[in-house]
Amino acid sequence: MKHFNFEEIDVGYEVSFDYNITDDKMQKFLEITGDINPLHNDLSYAKSKGYSEKVVYGMLTLAILSTLAGVYLPGEKSLIHEVSVSFVKPVFISNCPLLVKGKVVKKDERFKQIEIKCSIFDNKGDKVLRGNMKIGFVD
Amino acid sequence: MKHFNFEEIDVGYEVSFDYNITDDKMQKFLEITGDINPLHNDLSYAKSKGYSEKVVYGMLTLAILSTLAGVYLPGEKSLIHEVSVSFVKPVFISNCPLLVKGKVVKKDERFKQIEIKCSIFDNKGDKVLRGNMKIGFVD
Repeated sequence: MKHFNFEEIDVGYEVSFDYNITDDKMQKFLEITGDINPLHNDLSYAKSKGYSEKVVYGMLTLAILSTLAGVYLPGEKSLIHEVSVSFVKPVFISNCPLLVKGKVVKKDERFKQIEIKCSIFDNKGDKVLRGNMKIGFVD
Repeated sequence: MKHFNFEEIDVGYEVSFDYNITDDKMQKFLEITGDINPLHNDLSYAKSKGYSEKVVYGMLTLAILSTLAGVYLPGEKSLIHEVSVSFVKPVFISNCPLLVKGKVVKKDERFKQIEIKCSIFDNKGDKVLRGNMKIGFVD
C-alpha cells in the first residue's frame, strides 16, 4: 500500500496493476448486493442474449477502482469524493486478467483533491471501462 | 425482479428499497477487491482519523446501484452504460439500513436508454450518495 500525501503527488503520475475476476468473486458480489439479474448469473440466459459467457457485473469491474485509490493512488490516505465511469465493453471472466490504469490529471489545491483518469483493459487489450475519480486525503 | 421494457417505463417512475451493510459484506468486499485500506478495516485507525467506526467502502455503497438497476429499475433487461456519483457523507454500519432511491428522469429514444437519478440515505435521513445512471436494455 502506498502512503502519498497530497503534496507528494504530481500531475502525470501513473500506476497500473492486474486484476482477476473469478466465479468466486462473482458469487460474493451477488451475496453482497443481492443483484440476482440472470445476465450475470445464468449462462444459458446470457447465451440466449448473444453473449458467450455470463457478463461480469459492471459494478464489480467498477469496484476495482476502490483498490486503485485505496491501495495505489494515493493509497492509505485516500478518500474518494466522486466517481464517474462508462462501461465501454462487456467483461467476461475468460478475458481476465484485466489491466487497471490510473493517472493523475489534475490537482485542486483549494480542496486538496486529486483527479485521476481511470482505464481498465481486458486481456485482448480492449478498453472495457473508462472514467475518472476525484479523491481527497484523510488528515 | 422487474422485467420492464424500454417502452413500459415512463419519466417520473420511482422505486426504493432498504439495504443493510454488515461486517460480513465488508469482509467479502475486501476479499473481492483486495482493498486493504485501514480506514475500512481497522477500527483503531479509523478512530485515530476522527471517525467513530470503520468507514464503509464508498464503492460498496455504490455497488448497491447494481441491484437498483438489475433487479428494480428496469430489472431483468438492464445493461448499465454509465454511472456517476458523489459520496456526500461517510457511511457507517450503525447507520444502516440505508434507503436506496431511483427515479427515471429522462428517456433517450435514439439510444433506447433511460437515465435514473439515484440517491442513498442513511437511517438518520442524511443523504450519503447522489448520482445518476444511464441504462440500456438487453434485447
